[in-house]
Amino acid sequence: MDTMDTDASSCPENSQKQDFDQKIFVNRSLTLENVKCYGFDMDYTLAVYKSPDYESLGFELIRDRMVSIGYPHEILRYTYDPSFPTRGLVVDTTYGNLLKVDSNGNILVCSHGFLFLKGDDIDKYYPNKFIQRGDTDRFYILNTLFNLSETYLYACLVDFFTRCNRYTNLLKGYQHGDLLMSYRTMFQDVRGAMDFIHNTGILKEKTIKNLDKYVLKDEKIPVLLSRIKTVAKLFIATNSDYKYTEAIMKYLLEGSVTRASPKDCWRSFFDLIVVDTKKPLFFAEGTVLRQVDTDTGKLRIGTYTGDLQHGTVYSGGSSDMVSDLLNVKGKEILYVGDHIFGDILKSKKRQGWKTFLVVPELTKVLSVWEEKKNVFDELKRLDIFLAELYKHQDSSSRERPDISAIQARMRVLTHRMDMAYSQMGSLLRSGSRQTLFASQLMRYADLYSSTCSNLLHYPFNYLFLAPPVLMPHEVTTQNYDFGSSQIPTVTNHTIGN
Amino acid sequence: MDTMDTDASSCPENSQKQDFDQKIFVNRSLTLENVKCYGFDMDYTLAVYKSPDYESLGFELIRDRMVSIGYPHEILRYTYDPSFPTRGLVVDTTYGNLLKVDSNGNILVCSHGFLFLKGDDIDKYYPNKFIQRGDTDRFYILNTLFNLSETYLYACLVDFFTRCNRYTNLLKGYQHGDLLMSYRTMFQDVRGAMDFIHNTGILKEKTIKNLDKYVLKDEKIPVLLSRIKTVAKLFIATNSDYKYTEAIMKYLLEGSVTRASPKDCWRSFFDLIVVDTKKPLFFAEGTVLRQVDTDTGKLRIGTYTGDLQHGTVYSGGSSDMVSDLLNVKGKEILYVGDHIFGDILKSKKRQGWKTFLVVPELTKVLSVWEEKKNVFDELKRLDIFLAELYKHQDSSSRERPDISAIQARMRVLTHRMDMAYSQMGSLLRSGSRQTLFASQLMRYADLYSSTCSNLLHYPFNYLFLAPPVLMPHEVTTQNYDFGSSQIPTVTNHTIGN
Amino acid sequence: MDTMDTDASSCPENSQKQDFDQKIFVNRSLTLENVKCYGFDMDYTLAVYKSPDYESLGFELIRDRMVSIGYPHEILRYTYDPSFPTRGLVVDTTYGNLLKVDSNGNILVCSHGFLFLKGDDIDKYYPNKFIQRGDTDRFYILNTLFNLSETYLYACLVDFFTRCNRYTNLLKGYQHGDLLMSYRTMFQDVRGAMDFIHNTGILKEKTIKNLDKYVLKDEKIPVLLSRIKTVAKLFIATNSDYKYTEAIMKYLLEGSVTRASPKDCWRSFFDLIVVDTKKPLFFAEGTVLRQVDTDTGKLRIGTYTGDLQHGTVYSGGSSDMVSDLLNVKGKEILYVGDHIFGDILKSKKRQGWKTFLVVPELTKVLSVWEEKKNVFDELKRLDIFLAELYKHQDSSSRERPDISAIQARMRVLTHRMDMAYSQMGSLLRSGSRQTLFASQLMRYADLYSSTCSNLLHYPFNYLFLAPPVLMPHEVTTQNYDFGSSQIPTVTNHTIGN
Amino acid sequence: MDTMDTDASSCPENSQKQDFDQKIFVNRSLTLENVKCYGFDMDYTLAVYKSPDYESLGFELIRDRMVSIGYPHEILRYTYDPSFPTRGLVVDTTYGNLLKVDSNGNILVCSHGFLFLKGDDIDKYYPNKFIQRGDTDRFYILNTLFNLSETYLYACLVDFFTRCNRYTNLLKGYQHGDLLMSYRTMFQDVRGAMDFIHNTGILKEKTIKNLDKYVLKDEKIPVLLSRIKTVAKLFIATNSDYKYTEAIMKYLLEGSVTRASPKDCWRSFFDLIVVDTKKPLFFAEGTVLRQVDTDTGKLRIGTYTGDLQHGTVYSGGSSDMVSDLLNVKGKEILYVGDHIFGDILKSKKRQGWKTFLVVPELTKVLSVWEEKKNVFDELKRLDIFLAELYKHQDSSSRERPDISAIQARMRVLTHRMDMAYSQMGSLLRSGSRQTLFASQLMRYADLYSSTCSNLLHYPFNYLFLAPPVLMPHEVTTQNYDFGSSQIPTVTNHTIGN
Repeated sequence: MDTMDTDASSCPENSQKQDFDQKIFVNRSLTLENVKCYGFDMDYTLAVYKSPDYESLGFELIRDRMVSIGYPHEILRYTYDPSFPTRGLVVDTTYGNLLKVDSNGNILVCSHGFLFLKGDDIDKYYPNKFIQRGDTDRFYILNTLFNLSETYLYACLVDFFTRCNRYTNLLKGYQHGDLLMSYRTMFQDVRGAMDFIHNTGILKEKTIKNLDKYVLKDEKIPVLLSRIKTVAKLFIATNSDYKYTEAIMKYLLEGSVTRASPKDCWRSFFDLIVVDTKKPLFFAEGTVLRQVDTDTGKLRIGTYTGDLQHGTVYSGGSSDMVSDLLNVKGKEILYVGDHIFGDILKSKKRQGWKTFLVVPELTKVLSVWEEKKNVFDELKRLDIFLAELYKHQDSSSRERPDISAIQARMRVLTHRMDMAYSQMGSLLRSGSRQTLFASQLMRYADLYSSTCSNLLHYPFNYLFLAPPVLMPHEVTTQNYDFGSSQIPTVTNHTIGN
Repeated sequence: MDTMDTDASSCPENSQKQDFDQKIFVNRSLTLENVKCYGFDMDYTLAVYKSPDYESLGFELIRDRMVSIGYPHEILRYTYDPSFPTRGLVVDTTYGNLLKVDSNGNILVCSHGFLFLKGDDIDKYYPNKFIQRGDTDRFYILNTLFNLSETYLYACLVDFFTRCNRYTNLLKGYQHGDLLMSYRTMFQDVRGAMDFIHNTGILKEKTIKNLDKYVLKDEKIPVLLSRIKTVAKLFIATNSDYKYTEAIMKYLLEGSVTRASPKDCWRSFFDLIVVDTKKPLFFAEGTVLRQVDTDTGKLRIGTYTGDLQHGTVYSGGSSDMVSDLLNVKGKEILYVGDHIFGDILKSKKRQGWKTFLVVPELTKVLSVWEEKKNVFDELKRLDIFLAELYKHQDSSSRERPDISAIQARMRVLTHRMDMAYSQMGSLLRSGSRQTLFASQLMRYADLYSSTCSNLLHYPFNYLFLAPPVLMPHEVTTQNYDFGSSQIPTVTNHTIGN
Repeated sequence: MDTMDTDASSCPENSQKQDFDQKIFVNRSLTLENVKCYGFDMDYTLAVYKSPDYESLGFELIRDRMVSIGYPHEILRYTYDPSFPTRGLVVDTTYGNLLKVDSNGNILVCSHGFLFLKGDDIDKYYPNKFIQRGDTDRFYILNTLFNLSETYLYACLVDFFTRCNRYTNLLKGYQHGDLLMSYRTMFQDVRGAMDFIHNTGILKEKTIKNLDKYVLKDEKIPVLLSRIKTVAKLFIATNSDYKYTEAIMKYLLEGSVTRASPKDCWRSFFDLIVVDTKKPLFFAEGTVLRQVDTDTGKLRIGTYTGDLQHGTVYSGGSSDMVSDLLNVKGKEILYVGDHIFGDILKSKKRQGWKTFLVVPELTKVLSVWEEKKNVFDELKRLDIFLAELYKHQDSSSRERPDISAIQARMRVLTHRMDMAYSQMGSLLRSGSRQTLFASQLMRYADLYSSTCSNLLHYPFNYLFLAPPVLMPHEVTTQNYDFGSSQIPTVTNHTIGN
Repeated sequence: MDTMDTDASSCPENSQKQDFDQKIFVNRSLTLENVKCYGFDMDYTLAVYKSPDYESLGFELIRDRMVSIGYPHEILRYTYDPSFPTRGLVVDTTYGNLLKVDSNGNILVCSHGFLFLKGDDIDKYYPNKFIQRGDTDRFYILNTLFNLSETYLYACLVDFFTRCNRYTNLLKGYQHGDLLMSYRTMFQDVRGAMDFIHNTGILKEKTIKNLDKYVLKDEKIPVLLSRIKTVAKLFIATNSDYKYTEAIMKYLLEGSVTRASPKDCWRSFFDLIVVDTKKPLFFAEGTVLRQVDTDTGKLRIGTYTGDLQHGTVYSGGSSDMVSDLLNVKGKEILYVGDHIFGDILKSKKRQGWKTFLVVPELTKVLSVWEEKKNVFDELKRLDIFLAELYKHQDSSSRERPDISAIQARMRVLTHRMDMAYSQMGSLLRSGSRQTLFASQLMRYADLYSSTCSNLLHYPFNYLFLAPPVLMPHEVTTQNYDFGSSQIPTVTNHTIGN
């Protein structure tokens, strides 16, 4: 426990800069004392996969699968490049582009293969630089960390076919003799390859064979779960099957040096274990709840109807059954997961659960935010300068300040910030504009942090206080008006749109 | 023009406190110079109805209609009380309650008739103090200013039947002999009465007969439109019919002392006039576009297919046709309206238009914000105090600060703020928590203001800069951490939930 | 009662040929003794409108309405021609054609205005002479006798615009300067005019003013209802409102010479009276059940929840409520109506009711069937002849009998039969092929007859026996094989398709 | 060829009674000469599986799978009994019953396990002896011959659990300690087991290993296909994958003694071969059309866009692509299949194709029809007798003939007929009433026969003439009135309902 005590004592209020990564951030205030039950997703929540090794593994498996179903051998030359993709991108299956969009469907970044398109070129595809996100048949959102490898593979394919002179470039794909490789079928093939490596169990098998390489053994996890157990109920709800769940959780929870009784079974950490949850269906009508035979890993027949039995593992079910079995109400549950849609949006919208989103990228985000402070400061000054230019004018004015030089400088600074993350920029922003992912994070996640183990740094009666969300008219009237020296950082302008 | 020049010169930057009401607030930065076309809704946008006279008129007409279809004569005793309803409330047609909710469906305020329910009583109806907003068959949102009179009438009905001893109170309504008055059919009757006064034209007739009483003759409107006309295209798109539109627009635009040629027809102000638009359908597939015979007010048969003809009035159509006829792209249109769903959300989400929401309540909101400054300041200090209490603790801590006295004080202050607006509180907040309406306003309206004529105070090449929307982790790291003295006002906590 | 006894004694078994019109025909055997409850629709069921006077009235009202909304005055020259339209036609709103189709969507007859298209011309519009009936947005079925006037008016409009040289003929409508008159909007206008004359009450008003001209006063109706009353429960369920229902039913049931107490109120005939039923919704979830104040005709507020009260009139409700109030099960109800979809299909499919379809056209159908016996006989002989030609061949045969002369003759005979009904032919057939209407009649109506008063000719314990529906392999093996002299009449071939 | 010539010469017109099994029956007349293209399904159409060996194989595989997922070992005692199930039954997943229904949802036969329920017991489950077929979430139709084994297994499970005293019988399933075995989850498990044996390829593997045991090697098939090839285009469209299709078709078509060049590849018989068709999706929007590499059995990447290449095999696609590739219109295609919904209803309704349904059960049906002639004749006489009883009565009559003895006798005869087929009776009838399957067969299949090879017995310019489908009023007036001695056989009465 020594290690942990040291860790835990370095609580966020100590205000050293490395500590930000240990903080939990708050979108809506939450009294931890009212939480009677903690729920956890497994993948990328309790079990954090090591980047980029794990994404590389996924990339290679789907790449090889693509070749085995007939894609050219040349694509075997591509290897995973973690500096390219960002989570939350949107694939346009009609034109083969990867898009970064804001919550209203405005395009922030657009790439075709590895080529980044500029203003006019984007306009040719998307007249208003705008997409109707609702068209889910055409646009597919790559929301999870599992999607990173297919995001990159799709870019590789577009890159390859665009440059390979055996293929003719068409608006919606490529032609080679009688064959049409449409962007749409190419994406279907990538999705099919992804399903293949998941359904056949290849990815899981390789992961389990080399757990130290692919899964972070965070010693704080068993400490956290043990502490929670003393104050609240605790469950795990994962879409993974029992065999895989058992392998991963054993690795994470059993034989830890920090545990009093290291021989304890991983299942004893939880009041309820539910596998094969089929989220997001789990948060709606759900599926049949069955018991898992923990010896064989097989399902028992029939539906379980009895009381909660400790150490029993269930398959399927629904979030309503969790509430019933654990005898807690939706608002008393804090659910911790990594999937903005499947874990967080659905549990919040359908069930009113309290939500905690794990965002591993936050570590990088916070460090960039720190390093590029001078860039932010310059952008801030340019904003104030712009605002000053239009003072003392009204609708009868005809003079027009020349702002093109300022705008050009702002674009340079914005690009410099973006590049600090990756070629597609930050998960959360493009310059001063927030991504769809960021706006969903703010709407649906009550809390968020780079890892769930940061809960260790807060007492279980903590009052998480949200920073104020002031509306523009409130900001203004509270002397946060433009022109004042207190104006906070980068503004949310959309220059050039 | 003299009046106007004076008005216009008192532009917002002069930083006198009464000026806030003349400001336009910015959710997303917008370069006015890029706007090639301005569109306006009519009702409550160009034509502002005088409150509470107009709501009283509506209330009396639907109240009388209710009696004429068989409701007890006793309800004639009720008169409209503007201090009760707030726009944006949700009717629960199952239990007859009026709810004020946040964007996640959490209940902020709940009334049954004129009785305000407290914590435990709310929990009996809504176990988690949470509703699934998506259940539109059960929950009806009273989004527009037109809905205020029916909001109040519904509260009157619930009040009457609850207290009348001829009726037995049931969970879902009232019993009187063989008759069941369910909350659901009562609401259907109110909606039916509302449709009746609109469809028969009674409300419009009475409005037109007494325009000075019911419609604000804002001299700035013709000035604004004239100025816009010199720099951009201009259209009106209203769900009203031609006859009513003509009566209202003549009153607003013709014979104005501020016009160069006061005899000009109101139609000459616009490049395109579209009535019977059936928004929100207008922003989707739309309806058949027909010409209106401006002599008779009747529709011409067939569909208009020619080029835009000046002064011609059209009926129906769709937003796509507007773009085609005026030859502008969605992003070049700034649409000004008052209906968060029908005007703003739909034009933004489906068409990518720039949006300006007119929020007449903002005048009151801004003045309360000013008057109650001392209350905010006290709330702010309490917040900081709370945050300090938990410092230097982690998850192994067991001590529990006693915060009940602070919370009680915060509830008193919150209630005091709410009452400054009306019995249901502000359109935008309940204490520190934002309403569903506020969150939709922030998501979908690029600009908002108490009246569209405030556009007069800005040059047509203005760069509207949005205040920054920082995410919690960005706020924190930029020294807006709690405990610092710069922390802005009221926080978004949900104490007691 | 004397008259009636005479009538009733001429029961169908007397085997005189004029008697067929007094028969009830049977699709599925039904033991009348098991029927505990009889339900009746009003319009075209109890109240038979006189043809063609009533259709002419409807035609003139919608024609005049069309002119008043801007259609050319020239269409006033058209008057209703009962020899043209047939019930059950399908309007193709894309190309403006009237189609007669079979149950699989194959086109039997196709007219454009008054022009009947032939094989190749039909193929141009409908490549396979086939439509996807499921596309209800495009195809509208004119199922009821009320639709006859609009069917004819639509043909008139297409005729007028096609021949008027001010208009250019396009594929999907007509062009006149800037105006496009699409077939689609023209049909919307006709439907709009129809709604107008129904909603404003003009049609009802004119009907009530001249009942003797428009409504058949069938003296057998009160006799029938009186007799049913002695053996079973009895209700009326009509989409008409109370005022109109009362006017019509008074005329039909009160003051009849055949009644014992002619002063009795019409309501005393029924156990339950339901108006405003909104069928087909009535057979699904229904609407709120309310009482009608029979003095004022207005609805009482609230929902009626008590027991059945005799003589009380209800508005709305659902078929489930009828079962509950009368305490009968679906299978014990025989429902008599004229609307194949709204009355018969829905009550059968959703509720399992026994059904009786009133088909006034049957009188004509039966008389044509009798008159054209020689045509049928010739068709029968040609069929047998055709079948003989292919005997003694198998798939290795190469000889090809020349049957073109026979087919030509069959087409002539088929056309001659069709013309005996009207220009669009019979409601039930086109030559030997059955219409969609006929197939729905056979699937959903247990009984059918030209009038409901034919029930008088059967005892209330009658066993209606359906003629056998043999499948082709059963017909064949039972010596109804082709070539035998017992082969029944016209075969169901599709020559020329 | 000798055998075939003999076969073919014994064409149906030779009027020996065994020949009926070689006939093709006609629901709608069809001129074979107009057919430009023949399409075939493979399974149960070209490839007829030997009954009951094949069903036994399927039964055993899913039975064993059930045990391996946890069902009690006792069920291994059950073996397939071909005398129990009938195709076309409906499973009620709520109450675990097997239902035989007519086209209106009236229940004809109802079994619970192997127990056949009688009138009142059926009424307890289904108040009107009526189900709403549209509730596809609850009712599952076992339409295909593949479903026979699961039909029987489900009956076995219900039988076992009902009689096993470890389980308590509940309304919707069985209880055993904490476990609820609901009828619903039991059916899901059966379906799951069925999917398992299909998806893992176990069933296919075992079939291919023992082709002679499981697949009928009909020498007429290659003869038929060769002859068709000389007069029309020819394709195969199967949901099976390429490897399985190749194994089956090689067995059926290659090395046949009746072929001129027995070494020819099976693919040379067809103009177009499409596997993985995903019918019924194939008849709607379809899937991506890809080429199959016939060496490896794998799909080629990309979409095929060129002209038709002979001997090329395609995967996926849609019926529209078939029309395009073969350059034929829907009405020129005769499609031969065994699946009433997936093959026949969809191709007819969506595409207007001509349809030929293969109904292997017809052999048995026809022989029973022959053997039981005396039973039919007695039923016929009883019908006529019943009809006579009610003559000379009208609605004023009060006398009531006693028909209970006749009805009892009719029930005995009906049961005797049913038992001649199997315990659930005929695929097509229950006594005189037609099943849902029979009515769909009559609506959607233009032709039907016990095997597709019966096409050999007809010349390719044959005119298939449908027996007349007379409506009841036409039957009656054409002297097929009841009481006449010409009345055909069993009537369609529903005595006792």
